[in-house]
Amino acid sequence: MEFFRDGDVLFMRFLDGDDLLEGMKQALKDQGIRSGVVLGGVGMLKSPQLSFYKGSGVYEAIPLDEEVELTALNGNVATIDREIFVHLHATVGRRGGEAMAGHFSGGKVHMTAEIAVKALNKAMTRGFDNRTGLKTLRFE
Amino acid sequence: MEFFRDGDVLFMRFLDGDDLLEGMKQALKDQGIRSGVVLGGVGMLKSPQLSFYKGSGVYEAIPLDEEVELTALNGNVATIDREIFVHLHATVGRRGGEAMAGHFSGGKVHMTAEIAVKALNKAMTRGFDNRTGLKTLRFE
Amino acid sequence: MEFFRDGDVLFMRFLDGDDLLEGMKQALKDQGIRSGVVLGGVGMLKSPQLSFYKGSGVYEAIPLDEEVELTALNGNVATIDREIFVHLHATVGRRGGEAMAGHFSGGKVHMTAEIAVKALNKAMTRGFDNRTGLKTLRFE
Repeated sequence: MEFFRDGDVLFMRFLDGDDLLEGMKQALKDQGIRSGVVLGGVGMLKSPQLSFYKGSGVYEAIPLDEEVELTALNGNVATIDREIFVHLHATVGRRGGEAMAGHFSGGKVHMTAEIAVKALNKAMTRGFDNRTGLKTLRFE
Repeated sequence: MEFFRDGDVLFMRFLDGDDLLEGMKQALKDQGIRSGVVLGGVGMLKSPQLSFYKGSGVYEAIPLDEEVELTALNGNVATIDREIFVHLHATVGRRGGEAMAGHFSGGKVHMTAEIAVKALNKAMTRGFDNRTGLKTLRFE
Repeated sequence: MEFFRDGDVLFMRFLDGDDLLEGMKQALKDQGIRSGVVLGGVGMLKSPQLSFYKGSGVYEAIPLDEEVELTALNGNVATIDREIFVHLHATVGRRGGEAMAGHFSGGKVHMTAEIAVKALNKAMTRGFDNRTGLKTLRFE
């Protein structure tokens, strides 16, 4: 993974086999970005772990054991207990064009991926929310 | 719905049951943002009203009576007759991962949703266009 | 296609029948934007040419001969041999709501489309990469 910083934008380029979440966390940490908005992402993923939130803290895995085009990446950057946390939802396209979508629980890049994040100045943190079972966003 | 402003970014966090379009309009109005670009949105929606534009002003509803992951939110903010109008298209994921997509005609948040908009300075307005039957964008 | 510039944002509005990639390149060239990030895009497309990358430089076409809603547009702007190159992945919705997704190889706008790009200052170029068969991104 390589990256460059251009003002408020962190642009990352991933290589084949790179772990997407680990790579993003590494670049964000290097740049001291602790809150941000994902501007988008394109490329390919290898058997990405997509999931569907059933409530009470349980994510149901979506089986997808193949290479797919990453066609939309939305999400944000915040901190949980002072550690950077990247929340991503992904939309991907299968070989015939069928789209699959869900919470992105993790996965590796196939061939290449190009991701941009806009850094924010104000802090966003996540804390456990009893009602939803999620670590929901809190603004300072 | 809670929100914060960070420079040109309006970041909104929705709670379970919040109306997405109403919440966005409320936050935009509060912040005096009358034109903007949606940077993205993640979370979940409850039976969102997606639709497909058939022309001549007619949107065909897409049946979707279930909770879904919101995986991509694209669109913009403009005004129609001086009132804020939010134009959104949504991509969502069903429980098994199947993606559905269309014009977002409205809907409520399930659990939580996190949406970011970048404010623009120049005005964008919408006015009726005879050719398409749409209220198309106009730049000042 | 009409466009306006608002600080670092180039906002384009396409009319029925406009070629999306050609229109974007024309507006970017006019504004001297040679690197950027796509913030999003909504509207409709007419039989867009979506494709899936099989490796070794070969894209497999995804048959889609109909009008679709454009629900997510991700990608970026760089240069190849000093010429502007727009790399886009699109997510689209069919009449019944079924989503399709892939690399966007080209296509024309149906009715209207509204696209925003954030200009970057640092140069991004693309050059042939033996390992993937792709013209991958390089940062200066």
